[in-house]
Amino acid sequence: MFFRCLAVDKQTKARYGELRFLNHRIPTPVFMPVGTQGTVKTLTPQQLKETDTKIILCNAYHLCLRPGEKIIKQSGGIHKFMGWDGAIITDSGGYQVFSLSGLTKISDNGVEFQSPIDGTRFFLTPENMMQIQKDIGADIIMPFDECVPYPCEKDRASVAVKRTTEWAERCLNMHTNRQQILFGIVQGSVFKELRIECARSLVEMNFEGYSIGGLSVGEGSVLMNEVLDYTVDYLPEDRPRYLMGVGFPVDILNAVERGIDMFDCVVPTRNGRNGCAFTSMGRVKILNSQYKEDSSPLDQMCNCYTCCNFSRAYLRHLFLAHEILGLTLLSLHNICFFQNLMQQIRESIKNGDFKNFKNEFLSRQSD
Amino acid sequence: MFFRCLAVDKQTKARYGELRFLNHRIPTPVFMPVGTQGTVKTLTPQQLKETDTKIILCNAYHLCLRPGEKIIKQSGGIHKFMGWDGAIITDSGGYQVFSLSGLTKISDNGVEFQSPIDGTRFFLTPENMMQIQKDIGADIIMPFDECVPYPCEKDRASVAVKRTTEWAERCLNMHTNRQQILFGIVQGSVFKELRIECARSLVEMNFEGYSIGGLSVGEGSVLMNEVLDYTVDYLPEDRPRYLMGVGFPVDILNAVERGIDMFDCVVPTRNGRNGCAFTSMGRVKILNSQYKEDSSPLDQMCNCYTCCNFSRAYLRHLFLAHEILGLTLLSLHNICFFQNLMQQIRESIKNGDFKNFKNEFLSRQSD
Repeated sequence: MFFRCLAVDKQTKARYGELRFLNHRIPTPVFMPVGTQGTVKTLTPQQLKETDTKIILCNAYHLCLRPGEKIIKQSGGIHKFMGWDGAIITDSGGYQVFSLSGLTKISDNGVEFQSPIDGTRFFLTPENMMQIQKDIGADIIMPFDECVPYPCEKDRASVAVKRTTEWAERCLNMHTNRQQILFGIVQGSVFKELRIECARSLVEMNFEGYSIGGLSVGEGSVLMNEVLDYTVDYLPEDRPRYLMGVGFPVDILNAVERGIDMFDCVVPTRNGRNGCAFTSMGRVKILNSQYKEDSSPLDQMCNCYTCCNFSRAYLRHLFLAHEILGLTLLSLHNICFFQNLMQQIRESIKNGDFKNFKNEFLSRQSD
Repeated sequence: MFFRCLAVDKQTKARYGELRFLNHRIPTPVFMPVGTQGTVKTLTPQQLKETDTKIILCNAYHLCLRPGEKIIKQSGGIHKFMGWDGAIITDSGGYQVFSLSGLTKISDNGVEFQSPIDGTRFFLTPENMMQIQKDIGADIIMPFDECVPYPCEKDRASVAVKRTTEWAERCLNMHTNRQQILFGIVQGSVFKELRIECARSLVEMNFEGYSIGGLSVGEGSVLMNEVLDYTVDYLPEDRPRYLMGVGFPVDILNAVERGIDMFDCVVPTRNGRNGCAFTSMGRVKILNSQYKEDSSPLDQMCNCYTCCNFSRAYLRHLFLAHEILGLTLLSLHNICFFQNLMQQIRESIKNGDFKNFKNEFLSRQSD
């Protein structure tokens, strides 16, 4: 069994469980820091390990553009290449193909586009995206999907759902490597009918897990929560559910409440590099002059390396002086904050206390 | 005894010794990585510790401009502020006042200048530079000196030597804090008469150690070695000798041969950030296309974190992808390389084998 659900909250759909594969035991709900280009920005794998991170997300689209999947394969796969012995999931990069590439031409067969790095022409199909992800060698992989922007006409969203569903089937047919776990990705923008249609078709194909894509792209939390409310009901209880690209702590709490098990987001690292720290009392913008002489740690409740060793005054100095160490220390703290939040979420579900925990956590956040 | 000389090479002036103060035991010759603004660029104190670094150099001029010595004092001093429990030496920043500041006005009393950061006017004197360094709280401090550029007319160099000598005396008169160790700085550009005059005057004042400043500023290695050849003879054998701002491995070897005990240089970190690694076989420019598929470590002879965990192909990928982790990993490796070199230098002096070691080391360097 790849996934086991070990406890379900009585008041909500929140659930506590475990992903099991190879030598990995990953308790859920789980947060996966983002290492798009084969590195979680500014951190060594050793530092990442110390944040209690057990699985990270890399991006097959980015890695196939640079350095190229062949170099990763020659190096013995992505784990060895980047020196990370934890688990790795790759997104196929459907989202990135459409949002980052120039001169994209899409057909039912696949997508032709130019590399934004050097203009090289690529043609990606569901089949070669599976081969690329096989070469990269992550533990969990995603089918090639079409992700529409928000807002999106229903007709266009419908075409994308049809294509995403057909491509999912083609990916499944190519999926002969049983050392990797293949998820299906539910698309459908904010249209209930399309989301349900997509979920039903994918569930029929019997994937080992289900991703919900195309959210957190500008629709706002009310619509996102609505989509989750009805979509999750069409996903099987014995498979993990992964909400792609989400999110802020409040988004994570709302999605856990709706039955989501897996999350990834650039927020802790990107905000960290921008000088914004998550703390138990709300966000701290470290460049703010109020921290100039503040000798307290970022977060009194945190026992990460940053909080145990450095004051807000020092961190502010690093950012003012454009010192890279500042980016590292805030990224490290923010990931610890997220992993600590997930740990508390899991405990609260086990203890039948999720709803209370959520309310208390959010009431402590001053912003 | 702050310094003990434990062995002198029979063929050269190279010596093996130890700096002892508080709980620090620092074998010499020693290399001190540079942490100008209160951080050795890109590295956490934890990572720095793992390079076998026991003492680092900070810069009082930079720290007084930003964040200001008062904030450091309030934080409990520079060690606590930056989370480094090893030893710290501060340069007064005479060199930086002249090379970085705008609208500098120098008189026998001190230097008036504008902050290159925000234009604030500062007036630094030997006396307030001692107070600044007391507030910063490093273990070893430097007097305020006048460092002339190269080339320099003898007359101008002579005025600077006179001023440096007078300022050294004023600093010594201010030096009431016996928890800090004050060095004297020998100036004199490349003029034998001036260097000897400066050294003699400072030695009469009886400092606990002697720095040689104003070298490695463009005069080249032949002239630098000449200056060291005669200057060191005028310094007492029972005090450590510190060659400021030097250097590349070959410079360090040449200076150790001439009786120098202490070094600092930005080269390992700056070159690391520029993608240039020092290895036992010479320098590796990591962006070079020959490393594209090179799965070997930077240096087969090195057992640092970088060399134990990452290939040249991965490091090249990080630099191509503008990933900060690349800067960190090369800086870490380069400092390890320098500390490993110092360790080998000390062993070779103890074993009476320095000259052989130096020749063998340099013959292995392909560049």
